[in-house]
Amino acid sequence: MVKVGIIGATGYAGNELVRLLMGHKEARIVWYGSRSYIDKRYADVYRNMFQIVDDVCKDDRMEELARTADVIFTATPQGFLAGVLTEEILRQTRIIDLSADYRIKDVSIYEAWYQIEHKSPQFIGEAVYGLCEINRDRVKGARLIANPGCYTTCSILTAYPLVKEGLIDTDTLIIDAKSGTSGAGRGAKLPNLFCEVNENMKAYGVASHRHTPEIEEQLSYAAKAAVTVNFTPHLVPMNRGILVTEYASLKRKADGSLPSYEEIKSIYDKYYENEKFVRVLERGLCPETKWVEGSNYVDIGFTVDERTGRVIMMGALDNLVKGAAGQAVQNMNLLFGFEESEGLELVPMFP
Amino acid sequence: MVKVGIIGATGYAGNELVRLLMGHKEARIVWYGSRSYIDKRYADVYRNMFQIVDDVCKDDRMEELARTADVIFTATPQGFLAGVLTEEILRQTRIIDLSADYRIKDVSIYEAWYQIEHKSPQFIGEAVYGLCEINRDRVKGARLIANPGCYTTCSILTAYPLVKEGLIDTDTLIIDAKSGTSGAGRGAKLPNLFCEVNENMKAYGVASHRHTPEIEEQLSYAAKAAVTVNFTPHLVPMNRGILVTEYASLKRKADGSLPSYEEIKSIYDKYYENEKFVRVLERGLCPETKWVEGSNYVDIGFTVDERTGRVIMMGALDNLVKGAAGQAVQNMNLLFGFEESEGLELVPMFP
Amino acid sequence: MVKVGIIGATGYAGNELVRLLMGHKEARIVWYGSRSYIDKRYADVYRNMFQIVDDVCKDDRMEELARTADVIFTATPQGFLAGVLTEEILRQTRIIDLSADYRIKDVSIYEAWYQIEHKSPQFIGEAVYGLCEINRDRVKGARLIANPGCYTTCSILTAYPLVKEGLIDTDTLIIDAKSGTSGAGRGAKLPNLFCEVNENMKAYGVASHRHTPEIEEQLSYAAKAAVTVNFTPHLVPMNRGILVTEYASLKRKADGSLPSYEEIKSIYDKYYENEKFVRVLERGLCPETKWVEGSNYVDIGFTVDERTGRVIMMGALDNLVKGAAGQAVQNMNLLFGFEESEGLELVPMFP
Amino acid sequence: MVKVGIIGATGYAGNELVRLLMGHKEARIVWYGSRSYIDKRYADVYRNMFQIVDDVCKDDRMEELARTADVIFTATPQGFLAGVLTEEILRQTRIIDLSADYRIKDVSIYEAWYQIEHKSPQFIGEAVYGLCEINRDRVKGARLIANPGCYTTCSILTAYPLVKEGLIDTDTLIIDAKSGTSGAGRGAKLPNLFCEVNENMKAYGVASHRHTPEIEEQLSYAAKAAVTVNFTPHLVPMNRGILVTEYASLKRKADGSLPSYEEIKSIYDKYYENEKFVRVLERGLCPETKWVEGSNYVDIGFTVDERTGRVIMMGALDNLVKGAAGQAVQNMNLLFGFEESEGLELVPMFP
Repeated sequence: MVKVGIIGATGYAGNELVRLLMGHKEARIVWYGSRSYIDKRYADVYRNMFQIVDDVCKDDRMEELARTADVIFTATPQGFLAGVLTEEILRQTRIIDLSADYRIKDVSIYEAWYQIEHKSPQFIGEAVYGLCEINRDRVKGARLIANPGCYTTCSILTAYPLVKEGLIDTDTLIIDAKSGTSGAGRGAKLPNLFCEVNENMKAYGVASHRHTPEIEEQLSYAAKAAVTVNFTPHLVPMNRGILVTEYASLKRKADGSLPSYEEIKSIYDKYYENEKFVRVLERGLCPETKWVEGSNYVDIGFTVDERTGRVIMMGALDNLVKGAAGQAVQNMNLLFGFEESEGLELVPMFP
Repeated sequence: MVKVGIIGATGYAGNELVRLLMGHKEARIVWYGSRSYIDKRYADVYRNMFQIVDDVCKDDRMEELARTADVIFTATPQGFLAGVLTEEILRQTRIIDLSADYRIKDVSIYEAWYQIEHKSPQFIGEAVYGLCEINRDRVKGARLIANPGCYTTCSILTAYPLVKEGLIDTDTLIIDAKSGTSGAGRGAKLPNLFCEVNENMKAYGVASHRHTPEIEEQLSYAAKAAVTVNFTPHLVPMNRGILVTEYASLKRKADGSLPSYEEIKSIYDKYYENEKFVRVLERGLCPETKWVEGSNYVDIGFTVDERTGRVIMMGALDNLVKGAAGQAVQNMNLLFGFEESEGLELVPMFP
Repeated sequence: MVKVGIIGATGYAGNELVRLLMGHKEARIVWYGSRSYIDKRYADVYRNMFQIVDDVCKDDRMEELARTADVIFTATPQGFLAGVLTEEILRQTRIIDLSADYRIKDVSIYEAWYQIEHKSPQFIGEAVYGLCEINRDRVKGARLIANPGCYTTCSILTAYPLVKEGLIDTDTLIIDAKSGTSGAGRGAKLPNLFCEVNENMKAYGVASHRHTPEIEEQLSYAAKAAVTVNFTPHLVPMNRGILVTEYASLKRKADGSLPSYEEIKSIYDKYYENEKFVRVLERGLCPETKWVEGSNYVDIGFTVDERTGRVIMMGALDNLVKGAAGQAVQNMNLLFGFEESEGLELVPMFP
Repeated sequence: MVKVGIIGATGYAGNELVRLLMGHKEARIVWYGSRSYIDKRYADVYRNMFQIVDDVCKDDRMEELARTADVIFTATPQGFLAGVLTEEILRQTRIIDLSADYRIKDVSIYEAWYQIEHKSPQFIGEAVYGLCEINRDRVKGARLIANPGCYTTCSILTAYPLVKEGLIDTDTLIIDAKSGTSGAGRGAKLPNLFCEVNENMKAYGVASHRHTPEIEEQLSYAAKAAVTVNFTPHLVPMNRGILVTEYASLKRKADGSLPSYEEIKSIYDKYYENEKFVRVLERGLCPETKWVEGSNYVDIGFTVDERTGRVIMMGALDNLVKGAAGQAVQNMNLLFGFEESEGLELVPMFP
């Protein structure tokens, strides 16, 4: 039984980790870390956990926790983990970081987009970007996993096969993303009030959202060339779910024709046919966030537009599961050699 | 492994049965019955089930199904089961009926409220009302279970201990209930359109809703006297969840005083302390539907109003789980001697 | 042209006042008071007002404002107006107070329910409770109007004719109320976040909500006897709208029979037939909040339950219009002798 | 007083026409046409109109109506008007068609995208595309106005100045649009049920939506060259509102630099500074649908992305007002020489 510690257990992602780990056969939570609610019963912060979790919240004492837990999930604000991480800690435990601290290899890019000084760049090198479907093998031996962002997971997985196989002109790639509101966190801020979000829609962080460089870095690895994209997130009045719509010009074949639907489909299948958590939809279907809600699935669909020569790729996931806690558990399963889907056999809930 | 057949598998309750049974260790679905979608893949009707369910929908052939399945769930319109049920069928299989056909013992009351002729009243007598927490023992040996309605389960469980122990004057009992929209089913009707329901609220079926006599019958058993109530359902713009707010005058004690909070709490605890799926909240807390969403829990809270001498009782559940499919699985577990919570260890999903 | 000042212009009710007054032929806003946003452009706080309102927000200087404005609307927290009001101010201007400071005649009741000391009880006596349909004549000459609460307006108007005419036993009156979230205000508080409210429902303030004594006082005047009620508010995931469902036992006639539907309807018509803003629905119809959204209407319906001897009365209004700003403008119209519906000819918006 | 007839008065756009025309000083509705509800009171179909509209619905008798009404609004399914329109009708009245029948000049394109035979192509030539801000002068003398689609109005107005002035490479234009659900109409269809739409998001009509050729035609006029775009609509769980996010590569100047924010802003101002209903937001602001809800405004914002050389343009409107009924009334005002904003001085409602 793996002993799990969570720092940031009272955010929405933290609560989702708790929900998933309650159903995990090989893991037991030993530390509910939450600086805001120290000594308060966890079930008083999240009353869905009444009679399920009896523990009280504890402080963020990483060093003590490192001696106690086999793995620590940090669902914390940017900069927290970078500020406290030490070699001593990494020698004693494994860390799956849900923040962005170790996702970006070039520390100057991190510091430019996040407007924050990175306090422990020495660990960036060894951190493995935990997008399981792509980095599965490297995750297995890691001490430090950088769990991908929610928008990022969806954006990358949706385009990855076509980028990797060189089917699209990556200079033309545009990602228009839409997210439910749980991605904004549980902070009591005016723009997240019900009456401000409900019956409303807007773009935000246009040309400046922090997930942009993370997407670009990973797609650049796939393309083996620098990829620059437009990424535009939107806030939508629903709790959970991310939908991305991605546009790119298809490279024409030698005879000037576009790749066919079947050719593109076979590329997707090449990468995802055996991936339990990536479902490539059948022809003509567009993903819907509701079809994956509460589950670890990513649903992907695409359409070829002969008129414009573009492919429109679409992906949907639950931002708190595959976009955060579910992927973190998937990484834990890889780290400890469990069945990769252990604790993640969640059937999407409809409606 | 118990072989399960579902008639009405493509309604919302049917889909929820499928979701729950996918996670049940002892059961396997062998028949997805849906007259509207015969020969269509189930996952084409409910795309959340893509790559999870490969079966196609079948017709409602109860007699064939009775020979195939160990248990049949009927999530069908009123009158369907009563129209097809035979002794032959009951000899071969067990039936858990999610419709109202066998919930009411007095057939004339059924016919008056449902405006439908009952075609097989001969089976009403043996049918067991499957409110597990109250009728657990009788469920175990039954051939035919009348699974309670969603409003009913919530309304009864919330008031049951105080009615049973005679703490309230049942003549004063008023039940004001609010429900998410999935309770209205998946029929394509104008009043259930998004734009008609969203940002709207209304009462309906005032003084005439069909769940009224079912609530009255069960509470009458508890009170050992005829109970007549006002039951008013309301439609609320959300997918899942029922909340009931019940009002009743407390009987004063010999000295003229009201029962104290502690006295009432101890009565609730007497009935529910050992019930896994009923959570009596701590003092001052009111149930919220979100805390039980996706789970089989009923959350109950209450307040004593010294000014009016009334107790206000509140209960919340997920209408598709404890209010329908979850309770049906719980009944199946009792029928077959499985762990009562098998397949139902669902942690509520928040947000 | 009447010069209007608003204190608390940046709350939701304040913004609704601005919306309504923009369409009022006889009024012009001269002061957008908002302590939190002093010197900030109003349209930067409420961007719906871009290119419509060019003013900047000002401080709460009541004395200066009293010299400037013909009427002041105070949409402020409890206790604010009571803390600053003086005879000097009342000599110079008229005040329509959207807070509760002068709604309750018995200061000890105010202080008990609001847990706040009343700083200027000397003005309570002259304040007129601005429920226009009931107190129209007294409003006309007043210096200080106590604009009713949102729940209160709906609760009182729904029951008023039957209480006034003695048709119901007021000891049995129970008010179950449901409200959209704008009633909770624009404060950045965790329970009002989108993800906490959406897909959720709960009761709150059970047996302790501050609108209770206000309802009781007004219904007591109607009944000419003390009325004590249960009032239970609920929070519903929608922006606007209040729905009340009220239960009371009908008094039987000398022959033991209940009053008929027609008899009750004629009582409602007696009071409301000529009231523009109260619409008594036709037989069998239940009010829906969407039918009044954005307008100053209250819709009322009722059902007689022969089985229980009770009448179920239902009322719906838009909490920001008839429940706040609309009624305030209606009071202003009465005060200044304008057409009572001036600025309030708002057709409900659907959907 | 202009006499107005409406065919299709019981759709959502029809109901919005009624709402707006109730507040119009110069117009009076004389015909509520609705084939589905003939002889039924209009207020029984839309209860928000109770005590506001007393009329009953009539049949679609265009010829009789042409003799009665000064102007007819047709809010009807595709093909209806083309099937009944005659020279005789056009001699007697004016028509503002909210369907797509006369929006597209090339009848073969209409027939290809709508999959319907056009029954009266002889009138296409004279029909004026009623996008008021662009075609104001031509609208004034017309007999037949083709009122633009909701997505179309928003998509065109957002990009128009930059296309017209040649600032962007139109080959790169991509329009990602999101719409509330009222755009799907009031038909009782399964995909529009509350539980299917709520907490869900999806793209639809990818590379095939019928508003595409309409956008392309109008932008081609502006560009004086053929424009082909990707247009992808999405369904969002809210009642009203369209948001478009448009991407295009900016043409570089002779020195290789991009046009500055100020240069682009001045282009927008050139076209829209004096347009009452188009609000170009200040730097850094993104439009939100809630800021225009219930009003005739289009809000527009944009961001220049130096990294990719693209401009991201965003536009928001209320699909039932500026996207349908409001624009139709604006066209009527132009036709009859009324103040262009008569009946449209609607302050957006928030929240």
